[in-house]
Amino acid sequence: MSEKTITMLHPGEMGAAIGAGLLARGHRVLWASAGRGGASRKRAEGSGFEDAGTLARAVREADIVFSVCPPHAALDQARAVAACGFGGVYVDANAVSAETARAVGRVAEAAGASYVDAGIIGPPPLHGASVRLYLCGGRAGEIAALFEGCILQAIVLAGEVGTASALKVCYAAWNKGATALLAAIRALAGREGVDPALIEEWNISLPGIPKRSEAVRTSARKAWRWIAEMEEIAASFEAAGLPAGFHLAAADIYRRLEGFKDAANPPDLSEVRAALLRRP
Amino acid sequence: MSEKTITMLHPGEMGAAIGAGLLARGHRVLWASAGRGGASRKRAEGSGFEDAGTLARAVREADIVFSVCPPHAALDQARAVAACGFGGVYVDANAVSAETARAVGRVAEAAGASYVDAGIIGPPPLHGASVRLYLCGGRAGEIAALFEGCILQAIVLAGEVGTASALKVCYAAWNKGATALLAAIRALAGREGVDPALIEEWNISLPGIPKRSEAVRTSARKAWRWIAEMEEIAASFEAAGLPAGFHLAAADIYRRLEGFKDAANPPDLSEVRAALLRRP
Repeated sequence: MSEKTITMLHPGEMGAAIGAGLLARGHRVLWASAGRGGASRKRAEGSGFEDAGTLARAVREADIVFSVCPPHAALDQARAVAACGFGGVYVDANAVSAETARAVGRVAEAAGASYVDAGIIGPPPLHGASVRLYLCGGRAGEIAALFEGCILQAIVLAGEVGTASALKVCYAAWNKGATALLAAIRALAGREGVDPALIEEWNISLPGIPKRSEAVRTSARKAWRWIAEMEEIAASFEAAGLPAGFHLAAADIYRRLEGFKDAANPPDLSEVRAALLRRP
Repeated sequence: MSEKTITMLHPGEMGAAIGAGLLARGHRVLWASAGRGGASRKRAEGSGFEDAGTLARAVREADIVFSVCPPHAALDQARAVAACGFGGVYVDANAVSAETARAVGRVAEAAGASYVDAGIIGPPPLHGASVRLYLCGGRAGEIAALFEGCILQAIVLAGEVGTASALKVCYAAWNKGATALLAAIRALAGREGVDPALIEEWNISLPGIPKRSEAVRTSARKAWRWIAEMEEIAASFEAAGLPAGFHLAAADIYRRLEGFKDAANPPDLSEVRAALLRRP
């Protein structure tokens, strides 16, 4: 297929890895340095992205814009791109509810773009890690084609716009919801003096859980951007008439951990526990 | 050790199995048929318990009273036994918060009894299933001794009264909380049309979860008595300054399933989903 120009907003770990995959497939990948920090620059330059400088220029030159950002920024990102008059294919790959995805789509389409709803499941596709990019919307097939032969597997879903986001919501509802629930349980067990007994019991009857219950350690530095993701999931449950409480509680847990954002190393479980038990 | 007379309140599946274990160890096991249904009678007679008729007589003859009942009934049960002037060892093995356990203990001790806080983890100990009875309180060792050589493993925990209940809370917080969360996710996935894609993704990245997400089918008929258990867990989180929302949501899920109480067979997942999506 012909070479496309793709703007990546913004080169976080995931965006940088996806962009690197597109570059390797022979596409041109842009980013917009204006207003971005040193870490984004390092990742963008390390991945070989071209710096278009401003968002306006990055958008003007692009056939396709990829939005890969923290969920709370998804709609503002779409508005900023729409304000530049983007008329290509706008791909929102953020962890938002189907409803937010549709709102993003309306913003993109009102400016003249085509909208593709996407959901990423898996870690950044580096070092052979397995990751899937789920896509839906009229031009989803074109986006999937960009990744042919790439380590990132693009999968087109049938169904209306919002379907890819809904799948990501359901996946993260378990994966990140369970991590939060287990972290809260370990905090409670510590406070009640039953943590060693709990681990011993789990080792007998649920042997995978002691290790799983420490997943929060590696999550803690990402907790700041999982707060809004949990709220998007809660809104999805609410919209379906299901209880929102699981993920409002998970958002609460991750909010208590947002202070680990710039920690040099993953915190110990005892540090996580202390942060969770500190009354907000 | 010498033969003890133990009153089992009441012979549900778990109580009947525990009583059968005690009988096999040479103890005398009583129950009180007054006000109980046919299913309890069937279990008590099937297990070889002696019918003392009234609660008053069952309590008067007992060295030890075991309370194994739905969590919402634990405190009333203790009050009823206290009203009979029970002065032996009162064992509350119900799934309640540490705080409720301590309240039960105060009721029992005010009437002159000794109090042992207990928590059962595992299925009813039939057919070789592995189950643990955690115990704490001054006379916990005496109760543990009753079960020596029994398939039910009695474990004495150090710590103040409430510790055994706290351990059970932490265990069920995950086990039953996760079952409720997964059930809600399958309901959402069904409603959003992404259930097959979710199962496919789970099969790739979390291969144990599709089967785990159907655990709610066998739980549905027990959901009616898990509502209060989830509320006890929520209260435990709240008392520790942790978010109560996970288990208030789980209580909501189980409340929507209480109609399956007397179902002849476990419901299909589609029936569970329909019950969950029916607006309360």
